[in-house]
Amino acid sequence: MKKLTVVKIGGNIIDDADKLADFLLAFSAIEGAKILVHGGGKLATRVAEAMGIRQQLIDGRRITDGETLKVVTMVYAGYINKNIVARLQAHECNAIGLSGADAGYITAHKRQHPSIDYGFVGDIDAVNGQALNNFITSGYTPVLSPITHDTKGQLLNTNADTIAQETAKALSVFYEVSLIYCFEKKGVLLSAEEGDNYISALSFTEFKKLSAASVITAGMIPKLENAFKALQAGVQHISIGHAGDLSKLISGQAGTNIIHE
Amino acid sequence: MKKLTVVKIGGNIIDDADKLADFLLAFSAIEGAKILVHGGGKLATRVAEAMGIRQQLIDGRRITDGETLKVVTMVYAGYINKNIVARLQAHECNAIGLSGADAGYITAHKRQHPSIDYGFVGDIDAVNGQALNNFITSGYTPVLSPITHDTKGQLLNTNADTIAQETAKALSVFYEVSLIYCFEKKGVLLSAEEGDNYISALSFTEFKKLSAASVITAGMIPKLENAFKALQAGVQHISIGHAGDLSKLISGQAGTNIIHE
Repeated sequence: MKKLTVVKIGGNIIDDADKLADFLLAFSAIEGAKILVHGGGKLATRVAEAMGIRQQLIDGRRITDGETLKVVTMVYAGYINKNIVARLQAHECNAIGLSGADAGYITAHKRQHPSIDYGFVGDIDAVNGQALNNFITSGYTPVLSPITHDTKGQLLNTNADTIAQETAKALSVFYEVSLIYCFEKKGVLLSAEEGDNYISALSFTEFKKLSAASVITAGMIPKLENAFKALQAGVQHISIGHAGDLSKLISGQAGTNIIHE
Repeated sequence: MKKLTVVKIGGNIIDDADKLADFLLAFSAIEGAKILVHGGGKLATRVAEAMGIRQQLIDGRRITDGETLKVVTMVYAGYINKNIVARLQAHECNAIGLSGADAGYITAHKRQHPSIDYGFVGDIDAVNGQALNNFITSGYTPVLSPITHDTKGQLLNTNADTIAQETAKALSVFYEVSLIYCFEKKGVLLSAEEGDNYISALSFTEFKKLSAASVITAGMIPKLENAFKALQAGVQHISIGHAGDLSKLISGQAGTNIIHE
């Protein structure tokens, strides 16, 4: 089976021009098929503030009202996505930027919650792995922004970690997939204080134990739950670590590897 | 030879929610291969104003400084492009939104001018018709935003009429192409006062005569020059008219047809 590398980056890299430049150079050097999934960054907040749109967060998640959806569509699917694509093109990586509406490759629905109205936040129904695979076999590197659609004309704001996980799952039919979550730490830390002292391999039992003991911080839990879902669904290799260690994360020599029991 | 319809819409439709909805329904009903090229709209000006970015126009063309490029990339390649794509998907038209950087399908260079610095305005070097044709033969309807790139990582702001013309030209190798420019009038008017009294067929000689006599208004001249370039380059059928007459424009029963002598 051919190999595919799916890499997810977030705001901490996107907001830092030098880090982003280094990362994109390293990403473009990955051999074989690859996909980049990006989140947002501070620009969305800055544009929203400038336009007088009040931002509301519940449990760290942005409430996406109509005006906020406009801003994230502009910033994520427009500014961030197209700048990344243009820079990858400069590194001779034939990138194509896609939202979930493009080629209809992700369908989603507005999140239903008994008490909180998240607004235009979309939970994924399906990723069309065949459509993405066709782009890959045509020689393109998909660059995925966290904007999806409901097939009825409504755009939705979807968590980028989840897009990375669902995309990796959908493509594990065609490829041996490595899923790499890049963030600002070397890996999953044993405690917030201990700097570089990260866990090199983490199983689900260990994860449950460490989160119950609050050794793994609350902010990491959704990311790790996502990672274990991908592992369960057949994604071969999953690791979480620092964007600066990209090639080592892919070869399994850095970061936290998410492992079976 | 198979037929391909390339339709260009501008701000006058994009800014009017009802007109845009009607237009997208009519566009999705076009039989066979099709491409939509869109320009900008008032939202870019509104976002720029909200962000305190001063807009400068020379001869009706926006000077694209770095901050303005950020805004047009957000609005054109993000908000407008993705909303159009999502709505076309709702009409079961399998749209894919592309900037010129995506799949590297348009390469451009920063405009050189002896006295005016247009900033990040891009003039087209080449349209990769083969890449666009591959999307079409895969069943997609490309939706093209007027943002291009220089292959060195720089995004550029490019005139949407020119993108429509160059795209129609590049694809006339593979298809019998109809190029339809939609705007707010029924066709090329004989004078600004005469309402619906438009020219039904216009040759280059006639165009030169009428523009010398100021019967054709200055604002129409670049659009018509574009159209004649496309005709010269082998685009089969070209017409200019009202977005509300889309199907009649395609069948040649409305608007101004651009004809050989």
